[in-house]
Amino acid sequence: MRLYRLKRLFVGMPLPTAQARHERLSKTSGLAIFASDNLSSVAYATEEVLRVLLIAGTGALALSVPIAGAIAVVIAIVIYSYRQTILAYPQGASDYIVAKDNMGTLAGLTAGGALLIDYTLTVAVSVSAGIAAITSAFPVLFPVRVLLCIAAIALIAVGNLRGLRESGRLFALPSYLFIGGFGLLLAVGFFRYGVSGAPPATPAEAVAPLGPLTAFLVLRAFASGAVALTGIEAVADGVTAFKPPEVHNARTVLAVLGGIMITLFVGVTALAALYDVVPREEETVVSQLAWAVFAGGPLYYFVQTVSMLILILAANTAFADFPRLAFFMARDGFLPRQFGNRGDRLVFSNGVLILAFVAIALVVIFRGSTHALIPLYAVGVFTSFTLSQSSMVRRWLRLRPAGWWWRATINGVGAVTTATVLVVVAVTKFVDGAWIVVLLLGGLIAMFRAIRGHYGAVARQLSLDGMEPPLPVTSTVLVLVGDMHRGVVHALLYARSLSPSAKAVFVETDPERTRRLEEKWGKWGMGVPLVVLTSPYRSLLGPLLEYIDHLRAQGPNHIVTLVLPEFIPARWWQQLLHNQTALLIKGAMLFRRNVVVTDVPYHLKH
Amino acid sequence: MRLYRLKRLFVGMPLPTAQARHERLSKTSGLAIFASDNLSSVAYATEEVLRVLLIAGTGALALSVPIAGAIAVVIAIVIYSYRQTILAYPQGASDYIVAKDNMGTLAGLTAGGALLIDYTLTVAVSVSAGIAAITSAFPVLFPVRVLLCIAAIALIAVGNLRGLRESGRLFALPSYLFIGGFGLLLAVGFFRYGVSGAPPATPAEAVAPLGPLTAFLVLRAFASGAVALTGIEAVADGVTAFKPPEVHNARTVLAVLGGIMITLFVGVTALAALYDVVPREEETVVSQLAWAVFAGGPLYYFVQTVSMLILILAANTAFADFPRLAFFMARDGFLPRQFGNRGDRLVFSNGVLILAFVAIALVVIFRGSTHALIPLYAVGVFTSFTLSQSSMVRRWLRLRPAGWWWRATINGVGAVTTATVLVVVAVTKFVDGAWIVVLLLGGLIAMFRAIRGHYGAVARQLSLDGMEPPLPVTSTVLVLVGDMHRGVVHALLYARSLSPSAKAVFVETDPERTRRLEEKWGKWGMGVPLVVLTSPYRSLLGPLLEYIDHLRAQGPNHIVTLVLPEFIPARWWQQLLHNQTALLIKGAMLFRRNVVVTDVPYHLKH
Repeated sequence: MRLYRLKRLFVGMPLPTAQARHERLSKTSGLAIFASDNLSSVAYATEEVLRVLLIAGTGALALSVPIAGAIAVVIAIVIYSYRQTILAYPQGASDYIVAKDNMGTLAGLTAGGALLIDYTLTVAVSVSAGIAAITSAFPVLFPVRVLLCIAAIALIAVGNLRGLRESGRLFALPSYLFIGGFGLLLAVGFFRYGVSGAPPATPAEAVAPLGPLTAFLVLRAFASGAVALTGIEAVADGVTAFKPPEVHNARTVLAVLGGIMITLFVGVTALAALYDVVPREEETVVSQLAWAVFAGGPLYYFVQTVSMLILILAANTAFADFPRLAFFMARDGFLPRQFGNRGDRLVFSNGVLILAFVAIALVVIFRGSTHALIPLYAVGVFTSFTLSQSSMVRRWLRLRPAGWWWRATINGVGAVTTATVLVVVAVTKFVDGAWIVVLLLGGLIAMFRAIRGHYGAVARQLSLDGMEPPLPVTSTVLVLVGDMHRGVVHALLYARSLSPSAKAVFVETDPERTRRLEEKWGKWGMGVPLVVLTSPYRSLLGPLLEYIDHLRAQGPNHIVTLVLPEFIPARWWQQLLHNQTALLIKGAMLFRRNVVVTDVPYHLKH
Repeated sequence: MRLYRLKRLFVGMPLPTAQARHERLSKTSGLAIFASDNLSSVAYATEEVLRVLLIAGTGALALSVPIAGAIAVVIAIVIYSYRQTILAYPQGASDYIVAKDNMGTLAGLTAGGALLIDYTLTVAVSVSAGIAAITSAFPVLFPVRVLLCIAAIALIAVGNLRGLRESGRLFALPSYLFIGGFGLLLAVGFFRYGVSGAPPATPAEAVAPLGPLTAFLVLRAFASGAVALTGIEAVADGVTAFKPPEVHNARTVLAVLGGIMITLFVGVTALAALYDVVPREEETVVSQLAWAVFAGGPLYYFVQTVSMLILILAANTAFADFPRLAFFMARDGFLPRQFGNRGDRLVFSNGVLILAFVAIALVVIFRGSTHALIPLYAVGVFTSFTLSQSSMVRRWLRLRPAGWWWRATINGVGAVTTATVLVVVAVTKFVDGAWIVVLLLGGLIAMFRAIRGHYGAVARQLSLDGMEPPLPVTSTVLVLVGDMHRGVVHALLYARSLSPSAKAVFVETDPERTRRLEEKWGKWGMGVPLVVLTSPYRSLLGPLLEYIDHLRAQGPNHIVTLVLPEFIPARWWQQLLHNQTALLIKGAMLFRRNVVVTDVPYHLKH
């Protein structure tokens, strides 16, 4: 009861199923929810590009602007391509479903596994970067950053367990403040630069190159910046979460998002180049830039705060997507059934919980460092982009609706682009950690198949098809007795109500106790026959199992019901003071056919 | 099955009860077992005295010899006194029993709690000191000392789970080698000193005093050395572990032990004074002494090795005593019943396991430091000495056997002596940690009483005295159905074998599923009526509980049996892939009267 109240406090009152349709997003709240994941990368993508280029010295940093331009082109192509997908799957379709429908199960499972990995990394990376925004402004919090990350993840998880609509409301304000804050940063930044030239972001320190500026290094920088694309697929996946007309709303939101994303990302990168920002360990690039642009005034703290908020809330998209994808995969039998349960707030609670758990583990293992997590990121998302776009090409070629060749071309360009990026990402980041994701993806696919195989085997074994009409079952009811007390009398009465031929059985470890029991049996045994088994090794189980096996031998349709009289103390801790024999017996009987173990509780008052 | 084989590997084959009498100790093996705890303190008691005196500077160290003499007198008095106890309690009696018999329950519980604490500390202190002997000789092992302590405790625990006789065999050799090694150390040490004077143990460094040499400091040094007395009571406690004539053998062993203990302790202290040994952090006093006497030869390593062995094995006495005392206290209802179970090797396995667990926790918390643990030690043992000796005085005064006034005098001197030491120990070590033990002892006594109170309440509630002849019980058998498959058919057949009027119940969350179920029910339902309950909140439990409460309302003697069809996968991990609804239902029913929940397993083949 107390647990129930605790759950209500965090999760809210249960909602009836009929209310499911009303939990929908308007364009405004939909933009806010999906914006968090898509735009938040603006807070760290530029920095990741600069960190790689810095290996070739401060002189190489200017290359970040053309790299950002290339990434912007990829973003535009992918978004254009996904708008086709929304049109083709108006009921909403994750890359998992698109790939499975058009290219078969293996492609679907690959896309699904890749997405599950990336959603998890989205949570870990975004939260780590969000906390970094705060520790940049308040360095005193740096030592407790892992704790702050854990608290943030827990907060988002609780918010999500409360349900979708409230999530939309919760996240709208920070998303719009973020867009406003960064818009202001760009406007003031470019204006000041135009008027007076840039003040140096930090005391200008030229960093000597550690290595040469190779093409490989440029590609690595591009691959690091490509994390900006994560989250685009989420809109296509969540079409049904929008208010009608769903398709129109989703496509509009996606296009608007793409425009904002490109503007902010290219703008921040260009401004960082103009202001000569050099990435540093203790402070983020955005923090340095905002400090220089706003001269450390209140607007600086505003930008840091909204960066933190949107990054922490970015994890929210993953908390909407991961459970939804897990639901689809569970429905197809590739994940445990438990992911298919809606909680009493219409949320897929198990998906939320497992995502929170794994993300917290990642944050702890990687000590809340964004840079350490980045190499794992993006392999997954480009894998699923590529599979999804290729699937769309096959779909157009197969169905040939009006304008099919034009649509196939769009998705084809998308597929080739994302495949190219995938190869670049996998190759340039392989040694740094991409190999972990490749291994993990293989493991996940094998697991999906094993789970599906198991469910198939269970269904076949339980199927009634071809089953012969069953023979009636006979049963022996046996009460296990260790002593004579009210609980045992209660159990004997119960056993007799089930079967007039019920018997009691006692395992003798000490003849004196047997004598005392038999004395009481005359008065309280109510005529139930008492079977005494001897046990030279003081073992309760050995002789009991032997006797039960002997009874079971009566035939394949004979079931032995073993009744265990059990008294239930008034308080849970008192249970620790009693022998846990019942548990032992149940464990021993678990894998024996035709034995049913029944606890008959006798409730104590204090 | 695999778990069973693992247990046999560590614990050995089970022994029949009839073999219990043969697991007895001869005088030789008894001496070895009880020697380990008693004598092992020789390896650290001198050092603890010197460490306190060093506060007043190296000049005060010579006071260690008269202090050791005073401790030797106390040892002699206590041993003489305990030989009386053995005579009075030939069946063996721990201080707990002696105090409870003669001074009442509170005294008994105080002695019992004090002893449990001290046995636990014996394990932690001895093992820490034993590992210190080895890290003195091999400083490279110092950083892993906590791990070594844990490994040693685990080893002893496994040895004890294997049974008593094998323990005697295991520990005989190290005990005698220790006596031999330390005898040799004293003989060679004094001989070399007589012939040529002592070489300095370490480059003589005079340590400046940190404080004045007060009477309080001398008493603190005495209190630190008094830990040498722990373990004396163990012999009186373990009389029945000896071969017949038990009393004679136990008294002989106790007297011999006392002689050896005094010789070695006073001898080592005197030799340390002659050789000018100054206690240091990284090396034990005995190690410095042995290095000086044997000039670092193989005999030095021999002394360090046997010190380590006997100290680690000293923990063994506690592993014999703690479970035995716990057994006696559990028999009287002051500790959980589980401590009263003998394992299949005739050992009280639960006592062994909990002692190992707590001792490991202490070693980890105090980072394997003997000195940090010493202030906790000895309060307990002198509390139980005092209570036990006072009890003996009361016993002689009450029973007045032949020579009662002489015996009462002996125990009286013992009681006064140990009470004085107790006051000294408690006062001088209070701030350093003795307060923890005082608090803990109070907590333990409260816990003993609460446990006893609970068992009393249970026994009264279960007692058949004054119970009216019971009315017959009627029952409704209800099968909870979620789908129609072979497992459900099996459960329906079983339910019908228990009651021809069995019903099935289904909670509807989706009308379409109800329709499909009802279709199949016509063919496979075997005429069992199907009750359909609606659930607007998708909750399985709510409607089910309501319905069951409605059925229970038929009368106080009506029991509802809820049958849950459950299929058991072939492998345990597959269980994770299925909804754990059964567990949820059982939890909800646990505190409802007159409801019995029965799993009917259907076993899958793969």
